[in-house]
Amino acid sequence: MRIGVIGGGQLGRMLALAAYPLGARVTFLDPVPDAPMRHLAEHICATYDDERALAQLARDCEVVTYEFENVPVASALHLSQFTRVYPPPAALRVSQDRWEEKSFFNGLGIPTSKFARVDTHSEFLEALENIGLPAVLKTRRLGYDGKGQFVIQTRADAAAAWRALGGAPLILEARVNFTRELSILAVRGQDGACAFYPLVENVHRDGILRWSRTPISNAENLEPQAQEYARRVLEALRYVGVLAIEMFQTSESLLANEMAPRVHNSGHWTIEGAVTSQFENHVRAISAMPLGSPRPRGYSALLNFIGALPDVNALLQIPDAHAHVYDKAPRAGRKLGHVTIVAEDEKMREMKLAEALELERIPL
Amino acid sequence: MRIGVIGGGQLGRMLALAAYPLGARVTFLDPVPDAPMRHLAEHICATYDDERALAQLARDCEVVTYEFENVPVASALHLSQFTRVYPPPAALRVSQDRWEEKSFFNGLGIPTSKFARVDTHSEFLEALENIGLPAVLKTRRLGYDGKGQFVIQTRADAAAAWRALGGAPLILEARVNFTRELSILAVRGQDGACAFYPLVENVHRDGILRWSRTPISNAENLEPQAQEYARRVLEALRYVGVLAIEMFQTSESLLANEMAPRVHNSGHWTIEGAVTSQFENHVRAISAMPLGSPRPRGYSALLNFIGALPDVNALLQIPDAHAHVYDKAPRAGRKLGHVTIVAEDEKMREMKLAEALELERIPL
Repeated sequence: MRIGVIGGGQLGRMLALAAYPLGARVTFLDPVPDAPMRHLAEHICATYDDERALAQLARDCEVVTYEFENVPVASALHLSQFTRVYPPPAALRVSQDRWEEKSFFNGLGIPTSKFARVDTHSEFLEALENIGLPAVLKTRRLGYDGKGQFVIQTRADAAAAWRALGGAPLILEARVNFTRELSILAVRGQDGACAFYPLVENVHRDGILRWSRTPISNAENLEPQAQEYARRVLEALRYVGVLAIEMFQTSESLLANEMAPRVHNSGHWTIEGAVTSQFENHVRAISAMPLGSPRPRGYSALLNFIGALPDVNALLQIPDAHAHVYDKAPRAGRKLGHVTIVAEDEKMREMKLAEALELERIPL
Repeated sequence: MRIGVIGGGQLGRMLALAAYPLGARVTFLDPVPDAPMRHLAEHICATYDDERALAQLARDCEVVTYEFENVPVASALHLSQFTRVYPPPAALRVSQDRWEEKSFFNGLGIPTSKFARVDTHSEFLEALENIGLPAVLKTRRLGYDGKGQFVIQTRADAAAAWRALGGAPLILEARVNFTRELSILAVRGQDGACAFYPLVENVHRDGILRWSRTPISNAENLEPQAQEYARRVLEALRYVGVLAIEMFQTSESLLANEMAPRVHNSGHWTIEGAVTSQFENHVRAISAMPLGSPRPRGYSALLNFIGALPDVNALLQIPDAHAHVYDKAPRAGRKLGHVTIVAEDEKMREMKLAEALELERIPL
C-alpha cells in the first residue's frame, strides 16, 4: 500500500510514522523543500495544484489523504478521478469556509453560536444588530491559529474590525461565554464503523493550542452528546478517516465551533495515551483496515512547544513523558513539538502537567 | 542529533521510527539496496567495512549504533576514533564468539551450561567426554536463528556433527533440559542509570523466535536474579544502550545462553506494551537523554510473521492488537513482521494469544 499525503508538516510526519509499521509507504506533496517530513519519506516538492505532481501522486498511490484543511478542493476532486481520496473532498469544502461549516452543523441539528454571513458593510451592520456584542469578525477562509480574527467589544472595535478585514468574505459570530474549550476526535472506517476518542479540553494562548488534557472531569453527559454530533458529521459526509470537531462548553450545552477533516493537534496525546493513536487509526481507515480501539490508557496531557524548544531532557525526567520534536526551524508562534504525559489518575496527571508547564515557564 | 545505524533491517527500521519523534535524523549503512529501512531514512549502500562509507558515517553522525551483532569489530573500533559508538565495541566482540561470551558470563559469576572450546577433533572428543550427551555443537561465530548448530544425542550424531561443522572454530555445550526460555531486556544510559524490562518467555520453532509473552507467572524470584546478571554485564562493559540476554530456566536456576548488544526481537512488545519502548530507550541512551520507564502497560504477547504474511486485517480484529510489517520480500524462514497484543490481565492475554496463533495456524 502506497499512501499519498498532501502537506508534509508535523501532522504528515506523524502519519508517516504510524503508516510504516502497517507496511505502507508514504509519498508527500509539499511545496516547501524543508518540510518536516523531508528526512523520512518520499517528497514531491511542488505546489498543491501542480498538475504533474498530482498526476504522479495519483499514479503512485492507492489512496491519497491530507494533513491540513486548506488543500485546494479542485486538487482533491481531480485526484479522486484517478485514485481514492480520503477524507472525501466534500469535507474539505465544508471546512474551508466558516459560514458553510456552521451552516452545515446547524443543518445536522448541531448547535453553534449565532452567526451571520458578511460580504458587505451593510450586511456587517445588520449582523451586528442581530448578533449583538461581544462578537468576533472572522475571515471565512484560510484562518488558523487565531489569524484573520477580530474581537468586537465596542462600536469603536466594530469600525476597526471592518477596516482590518472588510472586503474579504467574512462571518460575524456571537462571542461565546464558554466554560471550557473541548474537542472530539472521531474516526470512521470504509465499512462505516466509527470510533470516538474521549473529549479533550484545550487551552489556547494567543489563538494557538497551548495544552490539552483528557479524559476530563464532569463530562459524563457531554461525551454522548459530542459523539452524537460527530457521528452525524461522519455519516452525512460518508467520511473516512479521522475528524476533529472543536466545541465550546457553555453552562447549558456544547456549541460546535469548527471541524478539521484530518488528524488534529488536540489528538497528539493518543500516540502514547490511547490504545490506538489517531494517526494509526487514520491510516487504518483510509487503508480499509479494521479500526483500532480509541480507549485511553490512562490520564493524558499534551503541551505544545511553541516558538522555541524547551529543555526536552528536563521534561523527559517526568515519569511517562514522551517528547515529539518536529525538526522545524524555530520561529515565533510556530509549533515545534510537543510533550505528552500519561498518568494513572487525574490527580497525578495534573501534578505532572503543572511540572511540565513550570519547566516551559507557562502560567497554569 | 544525527544517528548512524549499521544495519538496515527491521530492527534498524524500528529504531528510526523511535528516533524521529525525539528530533533525531538517521543514516543507515547497509549493503543491501532493498534494506527494510530504505523508504524512511538516508541509506549509505556499502559493505560494513567500506572505508569511505565509514568515513561518511563518522563525519555525518554524532553517534553511531548498530542493529545486529555481527558488525565487524574493526569497523566499530575505526568509527570510535572519530565519533561516539554505542554500545561499546567490546560488547560486539564478546557477543560475536559463543566461547568468549560464555566465558565472559562465567567470569562475572553468571551461570551457563557446561561448555568447551573445540578447535580440533581431539578437543571435540575430550569435550564430549567432559560434557556428556545430549550436547550441542555450534560454530562459535555467525550463528543465528538456529543456523550452524548440531544437536548430538548419540555417538553417531557426534560423528555427523563433526563432519558437518569440524574445522571451524566450535563450541560444545551441554544441552540444557530447560523448563522455559527467557530473555531480559536491559538498558543503560550514559550517566550509568539502568532500567530493566520484565522477563519475557520466548517460544522458538525451528530455531526462530515464534512468540513471546510478558510479564510471566512464577517469576518473582527470577526477576531480581536476571536483573542482577544484566546489571553485571552492563557495568562490566560500561555499556550504553539496550542489551538482551537470552536465558534458560531450569528447575533450579537461570543459565545465560547468549547476549545481543542491541534491541532484540523479544522486546518488540515494548512498542505498545511498555511505557517506553526498547527502541526509544536505546535512542535515549545513546543520545544522552534520560531513560524512560520500562514498566509494562499490561500483559503483552508478540507473534512473529515468518516466511509469509498472515491475514493482518484478521489479526487487527483482536482488541489491542498492533501489526508491524517490515516491508520485506517473503522467503522461507524470514521474519516479515510481528503482531503485538496487549491485555489487561494474564488470562485475557492468553486468550488473545491463542486466537492470534490460530489465525496464523500455529499450534500452541
